Amino acid sequence: MAQVLTDLKRLCVHTITTKPWPIEEAAREFSASGIGGITVWRDALTGRNIKQTGNLLRDLNLEVVSLCRGGFFPALTPGARQSAIEDNLKAIDEAEALGAPMVVLVCGAAPGQSLFESRKQIQDGIAACLPHAAAAGVKLTIEPLHPMYAGDRSAVNTLAQANDMAEALNSPHVGIAVDVYHLWWDPDLETQIQRCGKNNNLSAFHICDWKTPTLDMLNDRGLMGEGCINLKQIRSWVEETGFTGFNEVEIFSNIYWQQDQHQFLEKIKAAYLQFS
Amino acid sequence: MAQVLTDLKRLCVHTITTKPWPIEEAAREFSASGIGGITVWRDALTGRNIKQTGNLLRDLNLEVVSLCRGGFFPALTPGARQSAIEDNLKAIDEAEALGAPMVVLVCGAAPGQSLFESRKQIQDGIAACLPHAAAAGVKLTIEPLHPMYAGDRSAVNTLAQANDMAEALNSPHVGIAVDVYHLWWDPDLETQIQRCGKNNNLSAFHICDWKTPTLDMLNDRGLMGEGCINLKQIRSWVEETGFTGFNEVEIFSNIYWQQDQHQFLEKIKAAYLQFS
Repeated sequence: MAQVLTDLKRLCVHTITTKPWPIEEAAREFSASGIGGITVWRDALTGRNIKQTGNLLRDLNLEVVSLCRGGFFPALTPGARQSAIEDNLKAIDEAEALGAPMVVLVCGAAPGQSLFESRKQIQDGIAACLPHAAAAGVKLTIEPLHPMYAGDRSAVNTLAQANDMAEALNSPHVGIAVDVYHLWWDPDLETQIQRCGKNNNLSAFHICDWKTPTLDMLNDRGLMGEGCINLKQIRSWVEETGFTGFNEVEIFSNIYWQQDQHQFLEKIKAAYLQFS
Repeated sequence: MAQVLTDLKRLCVHTITTKPWPIEEAAREFSASGIGGITVWRDALTGRNIKQTGNLLRDLNLEVVSLCRGGFFPALTPGARQSAIEDNLKAIDEAEALGAPMVVLVCGAAPGQSLFESRKQIQDGIAACLPHAAAAGVKLTIEPLHPMYAGDRSAVNTLAQANDMAEALNSPHVGIAVDVYHLWWDPDLETQIQRCGKNNNLSAFHICDWKTPTLDMLNDRGLMGEGCINLKQIRSWVEETGFTGFNEVEIFSNIYWQQDQHQFLEKIKAAYLQFS
């Protein structure tokens, strides 16, 4: 059984979830609600002093859970792969400045080459960034993405693959993000979550819901309880590994982004307590 | 290596691929092109005498490869599940009348219950139809669907799951359809195709391509060569099992359905020979 959620201390909201709000406004609103954590998307930091922004978040009693996102390692040319690595080194610097303990990786896929080749380039890319991550004290967190993104966003599409990769990299600076949106359908999910926890690779837990029908492959995620994901069951599997981190609400939604964000945040809080 | 395709004898086209054409016109066009097979969607038979339509297809030297589709077994009430079984018995009768050796199953999923429950209802539903299928000499062919359809179209989302289910049902009247659109991303695909062949369950092979970006989750499939699927490699795995059946072109596409179907059929033939 999943732990009963009676307050918002372990709730973390991604800045992209309330995208219309500048990060300062989002942070004030999250903080005033008693929400415990914030995950920062890099676009939210545009034009800001990153270190000062991190301090602002902490002054508001928000734990900075992670920086989203690095990755996109595969590319058809060595030059483009090197550029990707450099962007990831920059993301590590940003995470260090912000005080975020990890960078979440959307690993990437290059349509012009095989998934096998893309997976190899992902693993090589992460390995190339590891010394810098270690020096910065920042973890690189592999997020397996739904198979519908295998064409161009990630060649890592199951938790089994992420486990394989994390175990091959075998570093305390590599972790895995379990996102229910990407993984809920997988018949091996319980087993692979156990494996992920046992190897100390379970670093983050992202929640939302899968709507039927889904109107947009990227930006039509549902609020918890709106869809068909067995969220409490998956959370119980995550907690059984000993995971005590945040439940991170990551919702991309053209529908919710058009609504009043104060009302949306109230819905998130209610859905979190009732359906997560 | 996949066998070199030098003619259209092993090409089968689904009636839904050229949906704007009535089945009679599609059949004449396929036949005039030297295409060897046709898979009939049930909607194409509306208002027809099914037995006579089957004779017409054979008179045009088309092999009737399969009838699409049965399935959709899961439902929240026993009454609805019984209705689904009755519809599948009807599909078996239609396949027998048409002279189609199999009914392809889109297995179904009911959003209001767990995938585990839906999978159990699928297996029970197929089992309930098996005596009728055996009497009719018709095979029930499980088609695992892409995980993006797990919400409402199929709780069977990998070839491993289809293999598990077919082996549990353990009947000469159960088979599996391998569709590259649904399965191309799966890192276990080669292994699972081998397993499927070894157990004599590989009954059908469906081809098309995955476009990036994909504009519609149902109706934006690509022509072979337009996307990122490693089609020749997957076909080589299928052929290595000893499979000698048809390469079935199944494309749902709002874009192609709006075009001149004669020109589209020329594109299918060219893409088949060059990219399949």
